[in-house]
Amino acid sequence: MENEMGLTDSLKFDKNGLIPAVIVDAATGQVLTLCYMNDEAVKKTLETGKVHVFRRSKNRLMLKGETSGHIQLVKEVLVDCEGNSLVIEVEQKVAACHAGYFSCYYRRLNPKTGELEVIAQRVFDPDKVY
Amino acid sequence: MENEMGLTDSLKFDKNGLIPAVIVDAATGQVLTLCYMNDEAVKKTLETGKVHVFRRSKNRLMLKGETSGHIQLVKEVLVDCEGNSLVIEVEQKVAACHAGYFSCYYRRLNPKTGELEVIAQRVFDPDKVY
Repeated sequence: MENEMGLTDSLKFDKNGLIPAVIVDAATGQVLTLCYMNDEAVKKTLETGKVHVFRRSKNRLMLKGETSGHIQLVKEVLVDCEGNSLVIEVEQKVAACHAGYFSCYYRRLNPKTGELEVIAQRVFDPDKVY
Repeated sequence: MENEMGLTDSLKFDKNGLIPAVIVDAATGQVLTLCYMNDEAVKKTLETGKVHVFRRSKNRLMLKGETSGHIQLVKEVLVDCEGNSLVIEVEQKVAACHAGYFSCYYRRLNPKTGELEVIAQRVFDPDKVY
């Protein structure tokens, strides 16, 4: 149990008990999504090798991809200089975004107009998955 | 003024008025740092083409690299599916991390022991810059 207790000792969780984790595609480095983890979610992620998140809107721990099956297999976990954020390199199954795109960042912000412009192709139809 | 007011209309700021921004190296896609922006910081970033952040510890807007000169030139701003986080692709001058590393994520978390292991080389000596 000593090892398990120490797994997250180097991390600083915020006042809500959360730490942000940037999820990136291990193969290409592309940023897929930003999620939040509590201490339990980080430990579950390390222990199972599958990304677990604390879903703030549902106030509970969940396996990323629980509903869709689009899980994320952990390849590497990196910690920033302050210990208060993570980068997790993963093998993404199908796609990370519930809107059907590989990455949640499928739109660019036009710096002149503020408009959002879609820059990626859908890889699945959300209506058939959720 | 109409354009300026609309620049951040598609973004959702949290209850503290902030949005997280994942800063990545435009050339390689490597994640450099995670920062927080208020509405003014996003607008300044878009208008000047240089990353501006809201430094929570100092409670003020600042140009990233203000002290060190290690500024970040904006190439692209991406918005996630929910409109509540950003990815900003930049040309990083020298290094992003105040600890002297190109990226703030210069340590891996050993998933068995919880220990942090340095995986990068310093590119500058912090004692000579700050």
